[in-house]
Amino acid sequence: MPHIITKFERAAPEDVASLAKFGSATIHEAQGRLGALSSRLKPIDRAMSLCGPAFTVQSAPRDNIMLQLAIHYAQKGDVIVVSAGEYEEAGCFGDVLGNACLAKGIAGVVTDTGVRDTQALIELGLPVFSLSVCIKGTVKETLGQTGRDIIIGGELVRPGDVIRGDADGLVVVRREDAAEVARKSQAREDVEAELIEQYKSGRTVIDLCNLAPVLEAKGLTTDL
Amino acid sequence: MPHIITKFERAAPEDVASLAKFGSATIHEAQGRLGALSSRLKPIDRAMSLCGPAFTVQSAPRDNIMLQLAIHYAQKGDVIVVSAGEYEEAGCFGDVLGNACLAKGIAGVVTDTGVRDTQALIELGLPVFSLSVCIKGTVKETLGQTGRDIIIGGELVRPGDVIRGDADGLVVVRREDAAEVARKSQAREDVEAELIEQYKSGRTVIDLCNLAPVLEAKGLTTDL
Amino acid sequence: MPHIITKFERAAPEDVASLAKFGSATIHEAQGRLGALSSRLKPIDRAMSLCGPAFTVQSAPRDNIMLQLAIHYAQKGDVIVVSAGEYEEAGCFGDVLGNACLAKGIAGVVTDTGVRDTQALIELGLPVFSLSVCIKGTVKETLGQTGRDIIIGGELVRPGDVIRGDADGLVVVRREDAAEVARKSQAREDVEAELIEQYKSGRTVIDLCNLAPVLEAKGLTTDL
Amino acid sequence: MPHIITKFERAAPEDVASLAKFGSATIHEAQGRLGALSSRLKPIDRAMSLCGPAFTVQSAPRDNIMLQLAIHYAQKGDVIVVSAGEYEEAGCFGDVLGNACLAKGIAGVVTDTGVRDTQALIELGLPVFSLSVCIKGTVKETLGQTGRDIIIGGELVRPGDVIRGDADGLVVVRREDAAEVARKSQAREDVEAELIEQYKSGRTVIDLCNLAPVLEAKGLTTDL
Amino acid sequence: MPHIITKFERAAPEDVASLAKFGSATIHEAQGRLGALSSRLKPIDRAMSLCGPAFTVQSAPRDNIMLQLAIHYAQKGDVIVVSAGEYEEAGCFGDVLGNACLAKGIAGVVTDTGVRDTQALIELGLPVFSLSVCIKGTVKETLGQTGRDIIIGGELVRPGDVIRGDADGLVVVRREDAAEVARKSQAREDVEAELIEQYKSGRTVIDLCNLAPVLEAKGLTTDL
Amino acid sequence: MPHIITKFERAAPEDVASLAKFGSATIHEAQGRLGALSSRLKPIDRAMSLCGPAFTVQSAPRDNIMLQLAIHYAQKGDVIVVSAGEYEEAGCFGDVLGNACLAKGIAGVVTDTGVRDTQALIELGLPVFSLSVCIKGTVKETLGQTGRDIIIGGELVRPGDVIRGDADGLVVVRREDAAEVARKSQAREDVEAELIEQYKSGRTVIDLCNLAPVLEAKGLTTDL
Repeated sequence: MPHIITKFERAAPEDVASLAKFGSATIHEAQGRLGALSSRLKPIDRAMSLCGPAFTVQSAPRDNIMLQLAIHYAQKGDVIVVSAGEYEEAGCFGDVLGNACLAKGIAGVVTDTGVRDTQALIELGLPVFSLSVCIKGTVKETLGQTGRDIIIGGELVRPGDVIRGDADGLVVVRREDAAEVARKSQAREDVEAELIEQYKSGRTVIDLCNLAPVLEAKGLTTDL
Repeated sequence: MPHIITKFERAAPEDVASLAKFGSATIHEAQGRLGALSSRLKPIDRAMSLCGPAFTVQSAPRDNIMLQLAIHYAQKGDVIVVSAGEYEEAGCFGDVLGNACLAKGIAGVVTDTGVRDTQALIELGLPVFSLSVCIKGTVKETLGQTGRDIIIGGELVRPGDVIRGDADGLVVVRREDAAEVARKSQAREDVEAELIEQYKSGRTVIDLCNLAPVLEAKGLTTDL
Repeated sequence: MPHIITKFERAAPEDVASLAKFGSATIHEAQGRLGALSSRLKPIDRAMSLCGPAFTVQSAPRDNIMLQLAIHYAQKGDVIVVSAGEYEEAGCFGDVLGNACLAKGIAGVVTDTGVRDTQALIELGLPVFSLSVCIKGTVKETLGQTGRDIIIGGELVRPGDVIRGDADGLVVVRREDAAEVARKSQAREDVEAELIEQYKSGRTVIDLCNLAPVLEAKGLTTDL
Repeated sequence: MPHIITKFERAAPEDVASLAKFGSATIHEAQGRLGALSSRLKPIDRAMSLCGPAFTVQSAPRDNIMLQLAIHYAQKGDVIVVSAGEYEEAGCFGDVLGNACLAKGIAGVVTDTGVRDTQALIELGLPVFSLSVCIKGTVKETLGQTGRDIIIGGELVRPGDVIRGDADGLVVVRREDAAEVARKSQAREDVEAELIEQYKSGRTVIDLCNLAPVLEAKGLTTDL
Repeated sequence: MPHIITKFERAAPEDVASLAKFGSATIHEAQGRLGALSSRLKPIDRAMSLCGPAFTVQSAPRDNIMLQLAIHYAQKGDVIVVSAGEYEEAGCFGDVLGNACLAKGIAGVVTDTGVRDTQALIELGLPVFSLSVCIKGTVKETLGQTGRDIIIGGELVRPGDVIRGDADGLVVVRREDAAEVARKSQAREDVEAELIEQYKSGRTVIDLCNLAPVLEAKGLTTDL
Repeated sequence: MPHIITKFERAAPEDVASLAKFGSATIHEAQGRLGALSSRLKPIDRAMSLCGPAFTVQSAPRDNIMLQLAIHYAQKGDVIVVSAGEYEEAGCFGDVLGNACLAKGIAGVVTDTGVRDTQALIELGLPVFSLSVCIKGTVKETLGQTGRDIIIGGELVRPGDVIRGDADGLVVVRREDAAEVARKSQAREDVEAELIEQYKSGRTVIDLCNLAPVLEAKGLTTDL
C-alpha cells in the first residue's frame, strides 16, 4: 500500500496569495469556524508564517522516510504536511532537510511530531510548525503515502488544500473554497476594522450589537 | 442567576502602584507563599506585565459573552480576570476586543482558556495572560456573572483583589492586604539585594544561613 | 543517607570545550542516538546554551536545600543538574541563587522542576534549563545527595558526565566517551555540511542515498 | 499561620442524609450546574460513595502531616478534604491512616494528590477519592491549616459544606443550601423518571421538549 | 449549515455481525493497521463491547443538542459517534439519554468528551465509550450536523462505517471494506491460534519466524 | 551495538519469594523511599501482582522485536521489563505473546508503552503492567539490547533486580539488597500492624508519635 501520489489539484496560486494576507484566526472564522488544527501545533518561532497547498504525507511515528521522499516529490510552493502519530519525543526534521526544502522552494513544513536544529531552521527562514522540539532521531524503515487525505491536529487535510499558519496556529481551507474564503476573510477584516474604530470611539458590545434586549430576555441583571 | 456586579471595593490605587514594582515571585513569597495561580497561565509575550484590581468574570467554557460585557462594565485600570473552565481549544479574545480594552483603559486580561490574534495584541501593548493560544472561535450564548469571587488557576480571586503578572506568572493579593504585602515585598527585595551582594562576594548558603549545625543535625555527611 | 560527594572524575576540560562546538541534536546522533533528555526540559530562553561536567543532585520534590548546597560544593565550570521529581508547580531557583552561581563560576543549571525570576536570570546570562516556570516557593527540609548517579528527563546522568544544552534540548555524554563523541560529532557535521551542499544543488534523498532499489524492494509505487 | 480550626458550622445531618440519596451529577444539575470538582478526582474503586460535611485541610504538596492531624481533629461523619497542590507522584494516605479514619468514624477522604494501599483501603470499605494512586511516600514537615476555605479540583470548598462523591466524581454543596439542593435534586429525579418513561415509550427530545420551532428558527434542515 | 442527514449507506448487517466476532486489535491489524481511534477513548466499563454502523454527529464542545437529535434520527443498530472537541470537563450523556437510546435500539454511543451517570449506564447495559467521566452539564445551543464525515480520536469516521469497540479501544472499518476485513480478521485469528499452539509447545519467535538470519544481518550478538 | 545479554546475576529466589509477601508501597518505604516507578505505570487489572528478577529490555518506541526476543531468552520466573520511550499510542504486547510468556514461565511483563488484547491477557492470568492500553500495532525493525541497565518510569532498573508490582504500582529492589529489604519490609509491616491496633483503639497521631511538642515548636495553634 505504500504509494506516492504527486498529481493532485492544488488550490489556485492567486487564491493562495489572497489567503496569505489574512491571519489564521480570521480565515477560520470566515469559513464558518472550520478548519482549525489543534492549538498544540505551533511555529518554532512566532515570527514564522506560511501559506500554500498541502503536500500531504502519512508517515509512521518516529520515522522520517516519507518526509524525505516528500521533499523529493513536492512542488515549489507546496507546504509539506506530515501526519505522524502525535509523538512528542522524536525529531523528524532538522537543518539538513531544511536546506533541502529551501533548495526545492518548499513553502514550509507542518508536522504533528517534533523537529530539531531549530536555531538553524530559524536562520534559514523556513517556516516550520510542529508539536514539539526534540533532539531524538527517527528511523527510515516504514513506508507510507503522499498525496492522500490525512488527519493532523484533529482535522482532515486533503492534498492541494491550503494550509495557512502564523503565530496563532494553523488552519486548512479546502482548495475549491479558497477564493471564496479569501473574499469572506476580507469582508470579515473590513467589518472588524470598522468595529475597532467603533470600539476606539468608546462604544461597547452592548450598543454595537444592540444586545440590551437579548440580555434582558436572558435574564441579565446588574447592580447599576 | 446571571448578574453583573460592578460596584465592589477595589484595592487602593497607590497600593496597586506599589505592588507593580515587584515581581510576581517576590509578592508570592512576601505574603507567605500564597496567591500563586497555576504556572500554566502565562503571558502571550514574556515582556508583558500587568498589575491592577481584578474585575472578575465567571464565564461558560468556549463562550465569550461575559468577557465582552466585562469590557463594557469594567473601570479604567481594572484587570479583567475570566474563569472559563480551562479549555485549551478555544480562543475567547483577540485584536478587536483588545482594541476595546485599550479604549476603556483596561490594564490587562487574564483567562484560563485561549486567546488569538497574538501578534496584533502584542503590537497593541495590552498585557494578556492565558492558558493557550488558539484560533477556534467561541459562542455568545450562556450568561454568567461579574464582580463575584471566582476560581482561576487553582486560586480564589475576589473582585477588587490585586492581580500582578509578569513573565514568571500570576499572583493575587487580597485587596485589604495590598499595602502590607507591598511593604513586605520591599523588605524581601532589600534582603535579597543584600543576599545577592553576599553571594557575589563568594559566601554561600551554609555560612550565610549558619546551616552547618542544622545540616549536621539532619545527618549530612560529605567526602571532604 | 544524605551525603555530599564532591570528588568525582570530571570529563576533561578540552573534551568539554570540544563538545561545546556542536548542537545537542548532533551529539545525540553522533553517539548512536543516546543520551537525549526528555524534550520537556528546555532553556528558559532559546538563546541559552551550556556545556559542562554534571554536578549531580538528588533532591526532594519542592525542596531546594540540596540545590543550595550544590552551589556551595560545585566547582567552577560545573553544570548543576537537579533531579527533583518532575513537579511543575514549584520554583526552586531564581535570581538570588542565580547570582550565587555566577559568583562561583557555575556553567549552568538543569532541573526537572520549575524556576522563577526568569527575566533576571536571562539578564544575568546564566543558562537555566527547566521543566516549567513557576513562582511557587519551595522548602528547605529534606536532605538528599550530590555527586551520585541520578535520573533526569528519563536519562541516567552520572557525576562528571558532560551535559550539553541548547534551544533544542539537552543531551548527556559519558565522561569517558567525551573525546570520541566530539570527534564523531565533527565527522557528522562534516557529512551534514556536504549533504547540505548536495541538497542545495538540487539533489534529493533518493539519489544521494541510492534509495531507489530499497524503495522498490519495499513496494513503493508512484503516480509518475 | 499554621492553625487548626475544628469549630465550624456543619450542614445539618438530615440534609446530608437527604443529599446522599442522589448522584453527584444530579446534585450538580439541581443546584444550577455548580459545585462540580475536576473530573480528574475519582474514587479508587467505582463502588465507592461518600456524603458528609467537609473537614477542610490545606496541606503542602507531598506532605501529609496536616492530613494526620485532620484525622485527630475531625468529627464522626466528616469527610476529610485535602488540598495539596495536585501532585500526582505522591501517596499521602494508605491503610494505616485508613484504619485511623474508620476508628474515628470519618465518612471518607478526598485529596488532589495520590493515595496507596488501595487494595487494603477497598477492603476496609473507606471511600477514598484522589487524583492518582502512587506508592511514593510523603514527608511530615510543613504545617498548614484546617477548617478554612480551600480550593480543590478547581472549586471552593468551605468547612462544613457537603461533599458528595460517587463513581462519576465529586460535587460540593454549600452547607446553607443543602436542604434546598436536596429538594431540587428530588424534583429533578422526578422529572427525569418521567422523562425516562416518555423516552421508553418511544418519544424523543423533539416532541418532548417541543423543539421543532426552535430548531427551525436556528436553521436546521434535514434530508427527510 | 446545520443539517441532519439520515440517509446514507450503512455497512451490510451481515458484515457488521461478522466483524463483531473479532476484537478491535485484530480488526485493526487485519485491515493493515488502519482505523484505530486514540487510546484515550475507552469504555466506561471494561465488559462493554459494541459493533455497528456509525451514525456520525458533529457537535459543538460542551453542547449535547446534536446528540439528542441523533437519538431521534438514528436507526436501530446504529452506533452514535459524536465528535465534540475533546473537552474532558463536560458530561454530554447520562442515564436519561441512555434509556432513550435503548428504547430506539441504538447499539452504543462513542464520544470524545465526557459522560456521567455511569453506574446507571452500566446497569442499563448500553455500551458507552468516552474520553472522560464528568458530571458537568452541557448546553443545547449550537447546532451541528449528522450523517457527514467526522474526525474523532484522530481518525476519519464516515456515516455507515463500522465502529467496533471493546476493552482495548475502538476501530473504524470502511463500510465497503467490512466483509473483506471480517475475512482477513478470521484469517489473522486462525494464524494467531496456530501461533499460540506453537508458542505453547515451547517454540519462540526466532524459529517460528526464521529470524536468525535477519537478526544476524542486523548485527545482533549474544552472550551465549 | 544490538546485543543480547542473558547471563547476569539474579536476586536469590528465596529473597524474591520474601519480597512477594509485601505490597509495593511497603517495600518502597522499607528501602528508604527508593525505587518507585512512575505512577503512570499500572496493571491492566487491579488484581494483578508480580514479583521477580528483571529481564531488562531496551527497545525502540513502537517496535516490539526486542520484547519478542526477550521472551526467547528470558528464564522461568523472570519479569520482562521493557523501556520503550513512553509512547502511549502503540500496543507492543497481546495475547499471542502472552501465551508465549506463559509457556516459558515468565512471571510478568512491564512496559512503558501500551498493550492490547487485555481481556485475553486477564483470562490468561499473566500479570501485565503498562503505560496504556492501545490497539495500534508495532513494527519489528530496530534492534536494541537486553540484560543491561535501563530506565523506566523514571527509575533505573538493572538486570536481575527485583521488580514488585501490585494494584498500587511498581517498585524495584536492587538484587543485592533484596534480603535486607524483605526484612525491613517485615519490620515495617509489624510496626504498621501495631500502629493500626493503636489507631483502632482510638489513639491518634499526636499521642502515638508524641507530636505535641513538635507541633508547638512549629507554631501550630488550634481553636480548642
